[in-house]
Amino acid sequence: MSVQATAQGARAAEPSTLPAGVRSELAEAVGAEHVLVGVAINPDTFTDESLHGLVQAPAAVVRPGSTAEVAAVVRTAARHRVPVTARGAGTGVSGGCVPSAGGIVLSFERMTAVLDLDLAGHTAVVQPGITLADLNAHLARHGLVYPVFPGTDASSVGGTVATNAGGMRAVRHGVTRSHVLGVEAVTGTGEVLRLGGAVVKRSTGYDLTQLVVGSEGTLALVTEATVRLSPLLGHSATILAPFVDVDEVAAVVPQLIAAGARPSVLEYIDRGTMKGLLRTNDLTLGVSAEVAERTGAYLVVVLEGRSAAEVEAELELVAALLDEAGALDTYILLEGQGDRLLEARENAFWMVKAAGADDLIDLVVPRARIPEYLRAVSAIAEEHGGRVFGCGHAGDGNIHFSVYEPDNERRHALLTAIYQAGLALGGVISGEHGIGAAKKPYFQELVDPALLAVHRQIKAVFDPAGVLNPGKVFDPA
Amino acid sequence: MSVQATAQGARAAEPSTLPAGVRSELAEAVGAEHVLVGVAINPDTFTDESLHGLVQAPAAVVRPGSTAEVAAVVRTAARHRVPVTARGAGTGVSGGCVPSAGGIVLSFERMTAVLDLDLAGHTAVVQPGITLADLNAHLARHGLVYPVFPGTDASSVGGTVATNAGGMRAVRHGVTRSHVLGVEAVTGTGEVLRLGGAVVKRSTGYDLTQLVVGSEGTLALVTEATVRLSPLLGHSATILAPFVDVDEVAAVVPQLIAAGARPSVLEYIDRGTMKGLLRTNDLTLGVSAEVAERTGAYLVVVLEGRSAAEVEAELELVAALLDEAGALDTYILLEGQGDRLLEARENAFWMVKAAGADDLIDLVVPRARIPEYLRAVSAIAEEHGGRVFGCGHAGDGNIHFSVYEPDNERRHALLTAIYQAGLALGGVISGEHGIGAAKKPYFQELVDPALLAVHRQIKAVFDPAGVLNPGKVFDPA
Repeated sequence: MSVQATAQGARAAEPSTLPAGVRSELAEAVGAEHVLVGVAINPDTFTDESLHGLVQAPAAVVRPGSTAEVAAVVRTAARHRVPVTARGAGTGVSGGCVPSAGGIVLSFERMTAVLDLDLAGHTAVVQPGITLADLNAHLARHGLVYPVFPGTDASSVGGTVATNAGGMRAVRHGVTRSHVLGVEAVTGTGEVLRLGGAVVKRSTGYDLTQLVVGSEGTLALVTEATVRLSPLLGHSATILAPFVDVDEVAAVVPQLIAAGARPSVLEYIDRGTMKGLLRTNDLTLGVSAEVAERTGAYLVVVLEGRSAAEVEAELELVAALLDEAGALDTYILLEGQGDRLLEARENAFWMVKAAGADDLIDLVVPRARIPEYLRAVSAIAEEHGGRVFGCGHAGDGNIHFSVYEPDNERRHALLTAIYQAGLALGGVISGEHGIGAAKKPYFQELVDPALLAVHRQIKAVFDPAGVLNPGKVFDPA
Repeated sequence: MSVQATAQGARAAEPSTLPAGVRSELAEAVGAEHVLVGVAINPDTFTDESLHGLVQAPAAVVRPGSTAEVAAVVRTAARHRVPVTARGAGTGVSGGCVPSAGGIVLSFERMTAVLDLDLAGHTAVVQPGITLADLNAHLARHGLVYPVFPGTDASSVGGTVATNAGGMRAVRHGVTRSHVLGVEAVTGTGEVLRLGGAVVKRSTGYDLTQLVVGSEGTLALVTEATVRLSPLLGHSATILAPFVDVDEVAAVVPQLIAAGARPSVLEYIDRGTMKGLLRTNDLTLGVSAEVAERTGAYLVVVLEGRSAAEVEAELELVAALLDEAGALDTYILLEGQGDRLLEARENAFWMVKAAGADDLIDLVVPRARIPEYLRAVSAIAEEHGGRVFGCGHAGDGNIHFSVYEPDNERRHALLTAIYQAGLALGGVISGEHGIGAAKKPYFQELVDPALLAVHRQIKAVFDPAGVLNPGKVFDPA
């Protein structure tokens, strides 16, 4: 059974071996000590963090140390038609880095350097294996940050580039795509392309950088990324505003933006999820029982600035607007409290995973349609008899649902209905997690067939042998 | 003689006719009154604003009124292998919309509607023929703006999308690419694709929207653009800071950004250009003769904000930093003065055109390399005996040179050297004007041949008959 099939919910780890002669070619490319097979392979490599239990042992893990070695590995793979799946930190949640049976995992664990840091230009050139945590520790010394904040800073830069990672703070800072100015990438033929560069303006040929960003390892393997940095903002404040319902939350968001506020987080948390977060994390936020009783949805607003005065001024503006918009109260959370609430919100993923959720949705709708969409999803869940819980990024319409429905067929029907409802409102299937293997069936089913055909043709341009992460995002024709 | 050849400097308008039967098919597609041939064609359609005098009469101008009509025109063109060049306002400066001999100009003059305005989501869906001026007049009523500001607001949205237009204010607001969330586009086979949508996060398949943005009408014709809007900022201030040389200007830019300033313009103007601007526009800015004497380069900083107080606070911060960085003085320009200086700077293009400049460069280098690059270009100009003058966007490394060298061969050598020097510093050929026909020879000569091959293959995916703006950006293989 292949990964494609396990995407439907089965749990399988098919034995996996390389065709004759490939192992020695790989050893020549990267050194024998960096070609792992059999029991030498860490079982963590078989999967990522997604909920589906997609598990597949690769035939080999190779650990190149340079772009030239990556290219040599891919050339070998293309010659022998062996699948190659790139792997960074393995923190993905759509099965994008789950290996192919008989395939190679190309691990970027040895390519973790900051190759260049332009302090005057505010750009860096980094290797894909570096984690966000390590990169930002390096940058903090210079008062800079790479402002991409997915759910965890254990992610590798390469992984976030592959999925166009977003996160809670994208509402202010933008998604990965906004910060990647260029990449060096190895195509499926082992050719090294340098796309883009350390410049923020460019009208010179097609934007192939942005084509590679978000392509989940199916077009080219990123061996260097040139990223845009921001000054580190030293001050922040968190406001918690309970509202009667999510309609009021959605209505206040454009008012905040229009008034010139630049929140870095605009998160809505429904009453039930908030209860769970507080209980699981042993948190109290000072919301009175009486207010909590009347609250249907909370809005969490984080403000950031260069000075306490700047944050204070924005805080006043935002608090006044929230008040006018019908907030039942506004709580300015102490630094520690705010951080703990956000951490709890980020960790909701683990809470959901531990609770045995069967799938995770991160659909996006135009932000004004959030209430309408939530109502549609409630009705769908009720109709299908599945349990669906959500919270999300009110600032950018990115909603995360956890879905509890163990039966594969019933879950597929439920998810299809939830996706269809989102698409009908002008949404897209995934805002930040990627399609990978887990959402592939839905993507293929729901995307315009003409668009799917273009995807396949573009893949053929970059990867004519079809060896780069085959069967992810979409299947070959 | 074709457009390709005129790009080398010749001025030619070859007679141009449609193959038999095509005219009636086009008339069926868009109505006979919207198919213009012969003397009915406005000669403005033969060219754009570029300096090369690229002139070519098309065989016909068609004026579709809907996406379906655009698709029908392209299908006819593909069937008969007739080139189709889209035209918006014709304000381009790289010859991107100059017709092909025997080809069709597809004018978007009838497709100028704002189809949707989402006031809560801050997005709009517009047709490509609308000008920036008209769109922003419409948006201003709602306190919103489409924050793309190329040299003129007479540009059409479609044209700015085709070239990924930038402009002076991109340093704060970003280039066109940052604001285009989705497009509806007609491929070279006449197929209608809907790419992206009114959402700011998306990890769902390849980013084909960004592939179409900046592709200069060679991949698909944009029939609708979904764009992101910003709140209109009602207050601004302009600071003029004279410095001894451009090195000091370049050094202060990252300091301003790192300190948290968000200037919407960071323009350097060298001493000679400033003299010309002041004289031509009959402007005085209050710079004393003594200071002017010591000044090698001026930095113009524009700040924008929601309130006078916000602008005032940023003004103080910026003035202090400029002072520390060695500004010979700092002049806060009165509202009218600042606007007139910026207008004069935008109109420098017309000054240069009137002065008989032979070419225009808008190369980009990483912003910290500006001084180094300017020195390199001075040395090249001296060596080649051509005259080269520049000013540019200090905030994003985008430098505009006007080149005076009437001899085609000598100019080609001079420009090649100037481009090569920029690429050697990590630059790209065009920051915002596009490659079009004018810069095509340099692009083809200087780009990695492997990358050029990928461009051609991608074009073949979208436009297998090669009818969409053929011979622009690059030639067929």
